[in-house]
Amino acid sequence: MKAVILAAGLGTRMGSTIPKPLLKVAGREILYRNLKILSELGVEEFVVVVGRKGKMIEDFLRRHEFKYKIIWNEHPERGNGYSFYLAKDFVDGKFVLIMGDHVYEREFIEKAIRGEGLIGDANPKYVDIGEATKVLCENGRVKRIGKDLDEFDYVDTGFFVLTPDVFEFAEELVREKEEVSLSEIMQRAKVPVTEVSGHFWMDVDTPEELKKANRLIVRMSVKGSGDGFVSRYLNRKISLLISEKLVNHITPNQATILSFLVGVLSALLNFVSVPLAGVMYQISSILDGIDGEIARASMRTSKFGGWLDSILDRYVDFMFLLCLAIVSGLDMLGWAIACVAMFGSFMVSYSTERYKGAFFSDFYEDFEFKFPGKRDERIFLTMLFCLAGLIFELFVLLAVLTNMRVALTVYAVAKFKRCE
Amino acid sequence: MKAVILAAGLGTRMGSTIPKPLLKVAGREILYRNLKILSELGVEEFVVVVGRKGKMIEDFLRRHEFKYKIIWNEHPERGNGYSFYLAKDFVDGKFVLIMGDHVYEREFIEKAIRGEGLIGDANPKYVDIGEATKVLCENGRVKRIGKDLDEFDYVDTGFFVLTPDVFEFAEELVREKEEVSLSEIMQRAKVPVTEVSGHFWMDVDTPEELKKANRLIVRMSVKGSGDGFVSRYLNRKISLLISEKLVNHITPNQATILSFLVGVLSALLNFVSVPLAGVMYQISSILDGIDGEIARASMRTSKFGGWLDSILDRYVDFMFLLCLAIVSGLDMLGWAIACVAMFGSFMVSYSTERYKGAFFSDFYEDFEFKFPGKRDERIFLTMLFCLAGLIFELFVLLAVLTNMRVALTVYAVAKFKRCE
Repeated sequence: MKAVILAAGLGTRMGSTIPKPLLKVAGREILYRNLKILSELGVEEFVVVVGRKGKMIEDFLRRHEFKYKIIWNEHPERGNGYSFYLAKDFVDGKFVLIMGDHVYEREFIEKAIRGEGLIGDANPKYVDIGEATKVLCENGRVKRIGKDLDEFDYVDTGFFVLTPDVFEFAEELVREKEEVSLSEIMQRAKVPVTEVSGHFWMDVDTPEELKKANRLIVRMSVKGSGDGFVSRYLNRKISLLISEKLVNHITPNQATILSFLVGVLSALLNFVSVPLAGVMYQISSILDGIDGEIARASMRTSKFGGWLDSILDRYVDFMFLLCLAIVSGLDMLGWAIACVAMFGSFMVSYSTERYKGAFFSDFYEDFEFKFPGKRDERIFLTMLFCLAGLIFELFVLLAVLTNMRVALTVYAVAKFKRCE
Repeated sequence: MKAVILAAGLGTRMGSTIPKPLLKVAGREILYRNLKILSELGVEEFVVVVGRKGKMIEDFLRRHEFKYKIIWNEHPERGNGYSFYLAKDFVDGKFVLIMGDHVYEREFIEKAIRGEGLIGDANPKYVDIGEATKVLCENGRVKRIGKDLDEFDYVDTGFFVLTPDVFEFAEELVREKEEVSLSEIMQRAKVPVTEVSGHFWMDVDTPEELKKANRLIVRMSVKGSGDGFVSRYLNRKISLLISEKLVNHITPNQATILSFLVGVLSALLNFVSVPLAGVMYQISSILDGIDGEIARASMRTSKFGGWLDSILDRYVDFMFLLCLAIVSGLDMLGWAIACVAMFGSFMVSYSTERYKGAFFSDFYEDFEFKFPGKRDERIFLTMLFCLAGLIFELFVLLAVLTNMRVALTVYAVAKFKRCE
């Protein structure tokens, strides 16, 4: 299957010299995002129609692994219908057509690619309806398209699944008029309409829209299932704001190292001020979410990154509690309890990680229990007790909490998974 | 595909009232082993020919999940060729034929089932050649079969992959003579011969052979790749001897609990005598191999069992070092170093387990490094230092060794897996 990408637009409202498909949203060019997802879904070749700034797009494609064909539109002022018409000799069989400046989430593309004709959204959440192209249907086909329809069924998502016979109508219109819009072609061809509603997609025309797309994609990067209470209601709210700012500037591994260093710093701060150390530890916990958010939002997740992050988290937790124990002048009983607390903290992670290794599924997807003891919750408690100066009490609490959580984990797994 | 199992033999040499296919080898009936492996390889129905003790076999089959058809041989004294002949109306198309008292390892059956005709072993390692049935070939087909051939190419493994036309020759022979052996039928039918050499299989005629089969299957249960130095050269040698004795008597989970309790006992023994505790800890390390050996040998491996064993191992290691630290009257520095040792011990396991969760492959299959620090090695060192009374030195050594091993693990994974 091939895909045609219309990337000849002038993008005058963006106020940038970079063509819109090459603008970065959440760390990746819009064009890269679409090509990457489409190729993972089976699209093998991309026919990219470019205009005046086409050289930059060509350079971009040369630097990436996608199979492509560049088509130069010498008359971009003749409209996107004319751009589309120029692709006519380069497709065969069913093909995808998308606007080069539209951002789609993966789930949208997965559904849309299985549709037919114009993909319409009955209830677009992220699009300015006033500016949007509306579609009125009749018998499941396009009857009228335009920005100013009073009555309409769907908003045009800029995503189409077409067959080459549409080019006959394109050719007619190109002969009739100077400026031809894609909408006119679709209306004349009476293409079928497939509804794909409820997913994120938007077109990016202005710097504000670019920022909005960036923010929304970063927000969607949070996998909820493994998050504890503190993470959900506090850490994520802050880390997402930071990720939004940083996603175009740092890599996930850099974010991992940053939060590790802040964690180490928080441990050492115990020798200066325990309350300050506690606050810094909580800050490192917030920063700890950023690497994953950036990785998922910028399509840069890596197995190695996830692995390394887990190892470093264990070292930070250990170092913090060890330094805290050292400065607290514990007696033998105090040290023994501190050891149980440190051990229990690891075991919360170990028991769920070992679960993934054994059952090849995620513990937090298979089980849900509200009992506290996850890392974000432990760190938050640690901060509170450090601020209150109750260090011995903290170790007792952690020792009990974490090991009880492990016991509950064993109980739950034994109950539901014993026979696997 | 169907399989015919000949289970009408008299088994006079075994001196047992139980029919041979129901004798347990490594915790499972011979019949169960063969039916289980064959059904996992795609055999859907079993035609089981039984003799005088057939009621017990029928009861056995009723208690298990295999699809079966029982055929009663009222004249087992007419030979195994006659038993085979009785199956003739119950197979269609290609089918497997095996002797009910033969034990095969999975790899043998995997290869044999893809063969044709009589499956021959050119170099059987576990069979008494004097007693074995030999096969002489001509143009890839059976020419002569018998126990007393001077010249032969293969030993008959008792495993056949046949087509129904063999029954014509069986019928001829059954009409001609009173006692008919399977070998006579194969010789007259000139069935093709497929070689499958170098795998474990044996027939079980005497109590000694039963014991030998038991021992060999337990020995084959050792997955080598994750074993450290001490495990390979000491622990396994002893644990296998114990597993051989226990495999027919206890379940893998019982073995897990046993080694856990001995581990906990070893930790508590520190309050009585540190050298004694060290020795008991090493004993628990040896016992720790038994659950896995029994599980694999008796085809009772479970994801839950493996998971639980890992969790309990971590608790034993922690408890031992904690009790040792308590009785050693450590000062602040001593406790801090002991904590680093406990943490490092934990991280050796965590880093490799987390690897499996991230990369979905086994760390010890992907990487091999000789640097010590695995559990069996740590425990052995712990015993030595406990015997020598060098507890502080032990904590220093463990602290360095384990954390260096984790650092090397991170280095190796970063080097080879960074881009995944």
